Amino acid sequence: MNEDREEKKERIKELLRRIDEEGEIGELKEEFKDLLGSISPLEIPMVEQEMMEEGVGAKEIYRMCDIHVELFRESVEDKFDLGDLEPGHPLKKLYLENEEITKSAKKLGLRVKNFEKGGEIGREFAELGQLAGTLNKVGRTHYTREEMLLFPYIERRGITSVPEVLWRKHDEAREGVKDLLGLLDRDNWDGKPPVEEIGEKANKVSQAMIDMVFRENNILYPTVKELLSEGEWLAIHEESGQIGYFEIEPKAWSPDAEPVQPYEISEGIKESQVEKLPQEIKGMVDLDSLESDDYNPAREGDHHLDFGFLNDTELTEIFRTLPIDVTFIDSNDRVRYFSGGERIFPRTKTVLGRPVQKCHPPSSVSVVNSILNEFKAGNRDEAEFWISMGPKFVHIRYFPVRNDEGDYLGTIELTQDIKDIRELEGERRLLDWD
Amino acid sequence: MNEDREEKKERIKELLRRIDEEGEIGELKEEFKDLLGSISPLEIPMVEQEMMEEGVGAKEIYRMCDIHVELFRESVEDKFDLGDLEPGHPLKKLYLENEEITKSAKKLGLRVKNFEKGGEIGREFAELGQLAGTLNKVGRTHYTREEMLLFPYIERRGITSVPEVLWRKHDEAREGVKDLLGLLDRDNWDGKPPVEEIGEKANKVSQAMIDMVFRENNILYPTVKELLSEGEWLAIHEESGQIGYFEIEPKAWSPDAEPVQPYEISEGIKESQVEKLPQEIKGMVDLDSLESDDYNPAREGDHHLDFGFLNDTELTEIFRTLPIDVTFIDSNDRVRYFSGGERIFPRTKTVLGRPVQKCHPPSSVSVVNSILNEFKAGNRDEAEFWISMGPKFVHIRYFPVRNDEGDYLGTIELTQDIKDIRELEGERRLLDWD
Repeated sequence: MNEDREEKKERIKELLRRIDEEGEIGELKEEFKDLLGSISPLEIPMVEQEMMEEGVGAKEIYRMCDIHVELFRESVEDKFDLGDLEPGHPLKKLYLENEEITKSAKKLGLRVKNFEKGGEIGREFAELGQLAGTLNKVGRTHYTREEMLLFPYIERRGITSVPEVLWRKHDEAREGVKDLLGLLDRDNWDGKPPVEEIGEKANKVSQAMIDMVFRENNILYPTVKELLSEGEWLAIHEESGQIGYFEIEPKAWSPDAEPVQPYEISEGIKESQVEKLPQEIKGMVDLDSLESDDYNPAREGDHHLDFGFLNDTELTEIFRTLPIDVTFIDSNDRVRYFSGGERIFPRTKTVLGRPVQKCHPPSSVSVVNSILNEFKAGNRDEAEFWISMGPKFVHIRYFPVRNDEGDYLGTIELTQDIKDIRELEGERRLLDWD
Repeated sequence: MNEDREEKKERIKELLRRIDEEGEIGELKEEFKDLLGSISPLEIPMVEQEMMEEGVGAKEIYRMCDIHVELFRESVEDKFDLGDLEPGHPLKKLYLENEEITKSAKKLGLRVKNFEKGGEIGREFAELGQLAGTLNKVGRTHYTREEMLLFPYIERRGITSVPEVLWRKHDEAREGVKDLLGLLDRDNWDGKPPVEEIGEKANKVSQAMIDMVFRENNILYPTVKELLSEGEWLAIHEESGQIGYFEIEPKAWSPDAEPVQPYEISEGIKESQVEKLPQEIKGMVDLDSLESDDYNPAREGDHHLDFGFLNDTELTEIFRTLPIDVTFIDSNDRVRYFSGGERIFPRTKTVLGRPVQKCHPPSSVSVVNSILNEFKAGNRDEAEFWISMGPKFVHIRYFPVRNDEGDYLGTIELTQDIKDIRELEGERRLLDWD
């Protein structure tokens, strides 16, 4: 349907103009519904975006969104069948979270109606603040798990536009909640609360989040349910905990499979899978011309580390590039490694294999030994020093290095000039880069 | 001679008591010289140290030092024959530096005499300050090269007491110069300059440094000249530049040898070498019972990096222990490695191999790309951001990683909570540890 998108956009604009002229939707609503129904729900955000860029006003876009969501809710049944998913399955957990998100978002919408009708203002604010705080967690749990754990698997299969569109919508929702929290913060008020703005923003956030639940339950989840193997879900499951969940207690899950990471997948979508994918995704993505991603980050001669792959050159150069000087002594107190580059305290190859005690002034050896003894005994996990050295403010830290079992492998010394770091002020974010 | 050290110490103490009683050295001087002459010059600092610990007063010790240095100068000729050393040979450079140290130290001593005789005070202070500033560089050049480059080679051969004694004396000299600089600093004066103290300190520093030159030229240097091979000297030569020199222009040196690091030496001192060692070292070290050090820091399965050895477990755990989160993308913008541990921004295995552009919110991709383009083009070498995140002050830095030829290998992202670092005050030195 991509080829007639321009035409449809023109018809949408025409309808929006007429609604504007007539002052109400009235009988144009049905016509609008028919038109929107012919566009994939996943493509609509892109159409909205394009129309914004072409100068269509925000008010018109929002009106279109409203009609679209209404249409969407009416037309789709809950097609997503979770019947065969165990409680700990990552997809089941996402689905359960969506129920929680819906509940909180609906409460927010209801609360706004109270609020607009003029409820007890202090109480309403407290409730709105609490709900906004809860919904603020959606972005860093539910959405982040999708972005970091789920999306890579569909990207490998060549579907890159869907993750991108969804991520944009996630960010809009995140931004909306943050704005709402800002509006609710008394410190930002100019004397009295911006009641109208708060109402509008809360309504928008509620809508956006419910809208996203619909998109996910009816398009994204049926798609990934069809595409991902048990091993892929297991890999997602294993990594989920460190990101966290939204308002659910995660259940354990132990499928009979080995975890499969996205980089281990190089095949695209199978013919047999295409048939079973939801209609909406077929409207948005040309499944016949997808280019799967077969990039392998592991190469011959690489070291396979816990979290990735590096070769000797990369290792050497990464350590050289670090703005921290690293020295490592092994469990026998012998110097085993130090990083290159312009070091604060020079290190020479001649100290490799030397007992660390012999690398220090004799008068400080007893301190060196007592630090190491504390590390070896497991009594301490850090020793920290700082000194001024000309223009430098030198921060020196020692940390014991232990393996998974907690056995002492040695100690690292880190040296860093933190003068500039100490003088940073305010913030500089990625988008401030120039 | 170690077995009769106690006896000799008692005789020294007795002599010092008598000098004290009689108020002057007089005829006791010759007796004292005979006694000190029977102790190795290198052992005398240890005897001094022991006597201090046994409660002999500093004044007596200093008197003994004076007599000792006088004796030493009289008795030793310049036995050290540099005839066959090329100008760029590390030992030749150490020797040439000793000439410069002697000159500066003698000047300091002469200047103090002027000063004590009541020269033009302002001018004398300026001169003293300049000389002390020059001598202050001895510690971090000449002495540091010996401690870090030369000592490991004799330690491997089992001679560990000599480096330790010399390092203690180095530190005394370093401390002396630092104290002198402090005394000369007007900010530390209580109204008027501490003339007498300055004179004493300057004299002591001058003496100590000249004393050290004697020790080195007559004991240390003949010893290492006999023991070290051409390859060992080459290794020292290659590492010398990064530490630096005292008041000499280093000459190039290209011997026909491969560098040999201390850890590659596991044999002790050969019978044929023992004969040629200076008498003084034989007096101090029991050459027959030396235990050479054959510890090999490299093990099977290690990665041989530019500066040392690490195995996969150590690498993984070192990166996990670093208080900085590291992520590495390769030259194709793919995530190739990230460090484990408790990260500020979680990283999951599912992003390995993922294009970095897909790991960021779509709205920031253009910034990500422009940073990478600047790195790839060689226009920039850092991109730095900082944000407040709850109690954390998060510092995010990107650095291009290049190989020796300057080719772009990828980019590292470093993330660090610098809140605590920003709040450090004053100093905490190694010896402050508790």
